[in-house]
Amino acid sequence: MNEDNRSHAVRISLAHGNGGRLMREIIEEIFAFHFGQEDLDTTADAARLPLDAGVAEWMITTDGFTVEPLEFPGGDVGSLAVHGTVNDLAVSGAVPRFLSLNVFIEEGLDIEVLQRIVASMARACTDCGVRVLAGDTKVVRRGQGGGVYLATTGIGQRPAGVDLGLHRVRPGDRIIVSGPVGDHGAAVMLAREQFGLFGSLRSDAQSVLPITEILLGFAGLRFMRDPTRGGVATVAHEIARTTRATVRLLETDLPVRPEVRSVCEILGYDPYYLACEGRVVAIVDAAVAAEARGALRAGGFTEASIAGAIEAGPARVILQTSLGGERLLPELEDDPLPRIC
Amino acid sequence: MNEDNRSHAVRISLAHGNGGRLMREIIEEIFAFHFGQEDLDTTADAARLPLDAGVAEWMITTDGFTVEPLEFPGGDVGSLAVHGTVNDLAVSGAVPRFLSLNVFIEEGLDIEVLQRIVASMARACTDCGVRVLAGDTKVVRRGQGGGVYLATTGIGQRPAGVDLGLHRVRPGDRIIVSGPVGDHGAAVMLAREQFGLFGSLRSDAQSVLPITEILLGFAGLRFMRDPTRGGVATVAHEIARTTRATVRLLETDLPVRPEVRSVCEILGYDPYYLACEGRVVAIVDAAVAAEARGALRAGGFTEASIAGAIEAGPARVILQTSLGGERLLPELEDDPLPRIC
Repeated sequence: MNEDNRSHAVRISLAHGNGGRLMREIIEEIFAFHFGQEDLDTTADAARLPLDAGVAEWMITTDGFTVEPLEFPGGDVGSLAVHGTVNDLAVSGAVPRFLSLNVFIEEGLDIEVLQRIVASMARACTDCGVRVLAGDTKVVRRGQGGGVYLATTGIGQRPAGVDLGLHRVRPGDRIIVSGPVGDHGAAVMLAREQFGLFGSLRSDAQSVLPITEILLGFAGLRFMRDPTRGGVATVAHEIARTTRATVRLLETDLPVRPEVRSVCEILGYDPYYLACEGRVVAIVDAAVAAEARGALRAGGFTEASIAGAIEAGPARVILQTSLGGERLLPELEDDPLPRIC
Repeated sequence: MNEDNRSHAVRISLAHGNGGRLMREIIEEIFAFHFGQEDLDTTADAARLPLDAGVAEWMITTDGFTVEPLEFPGGDVGSLAVHGTVNDLAVSGAVPRFLSLNVFIEEGLDIEVLQRIVASMARACTDCGVRVLAGDTKVVRRGQGGGVYLATTGIGQRPAGVDLGLHRVRPGDRIIVSGPVGDHGAAVMLAREQFGLFGSLRSDAQSVLPITEILLGFAGLRFMRDPTRGGVATVAHEIARTTRATVRLLETDLPVRPEVRSVCEILGYDPYYLACEGRVVAIVDAAVAAEARGALRAGGFTEASIAGAIEAGPARVILQTSLGGERLLPELEDDPLPRIC
């Protein structure tokens, strides 16, 4: 190997994906470097999955990430992938432990950008207490990708006795939202459009583990979900469809930041359909709703609110407006915001 | 939901990725349909990973698949993804059990093509005895993808006492190749170029489990690898680099189909660098090499051969030619065949 040829590339070329020297170098110098060699065997076909004996249940989830732009206020595709996967485990009541990682890189990508994304992903892994056990990279031709697409599979452990799901939801239950909705969708749209107006608006992308840990302390917790693609309205539809009940959301109590509301008015979006990447929608027994909200607020989630309820009635989603009226929130149809996550 | 609007789309649109009704429909009507509803909970954030107690070791692997064209003689991106992931587990000595699946779909894809790919994937899963436990789909704009990219993570169980790896390799060991090399790379190149000449050439893409099961019966088995991207020459380089020994390959005993050799001569490729997707390179104790080759041949792998050896010496790969000469096989550099797998 000629040492002088190493690391001089500034952009990803097709040869970075061919299985040979350049591919080995980006894997060693970027992925293994940031994740720590001991966590990522770059030569094995398969890695040992170090599962603790005696764990009640292991949970698995997987997600793809195609956000554009790759870096946005509050995060990037790398941290988003880790948080998104961690969050899917967290809302299932599990403690995230392990990840696998696939990277689809477009020819021509600035290698510095890849370095930043992988470094950000590694920091997010450390913050969330997860380890990458297996990885793979592919390089596709210019014009056949979007810079970087990521796919992550997450494995976590769930303690005995956790029973969450829509099968536990009953009319009368309350809906708790852990914070303002739509920040991620609005921040990514603005970053994409390169508006200069809304300097304070950042994605809410983060781990929801601190939220789910608080909520799991309540026996009256029925169900949790992170409202990503399609936003809180789409989660509400899923609840209504599955429980065959009416979901009532209260406009007055469903927090939306003024900047998000303004962006939506300008661009013609409804904030209830915009993705969040660091919020939780939870359904709880009405008897513990106020206490659960209080616990979240005391835990730093100061805008947590009781934003709705489950009602006996047809499967539909009603928004009770701040003026006291009602309107049906339809299921999301042809209003795509591609590559929001 | 208006039943009349269902299933009329013939091409994937951005709305198929927005988290709303159309996305739910392709997930239910294509993915859940082919994989079987009970294997794929399309609503949960995370699924239970049903691990048997008492298994010695669980193994994990992950891989991305970007092959072009999506369908080629002998397979398609769907079956390739399943076989590729199963094969990574198989060569580690594990029995594949579970998969997670990410699908990146390009806007405009013919939905019939997606149906065929998913059906093919489901058949491959059944054939290999693996179940899909978690999945995710993303849709990207036209010109930001390659039809379908897949990422799969596989989990398998490895019996107690299996110890495979390059740490076990010693000078004098023999290299067994389970069949002709380069078929997959050559078949995909031809399918891409739309040559009409080589009608009989098919990809070797298939599960290598029947091969690894035979080889695992030999205590003298040291190491197995499936020679995908970069081909058998790249596996030889990895062996040489890691063991700090010389790998000698014997041209006379390394099977290459005449059609593959012809394609390589015409297009200017070396078959030893072309991907296989259904072969195994194994290193065995010299004392059992002939017997292991015999077992493979008796098992239906009639072209299995002892195609080389490990020698004390500098880390390099030597090809001993059919004329008795020697040439060094270099590490793969700038000869990319993008999207071969």
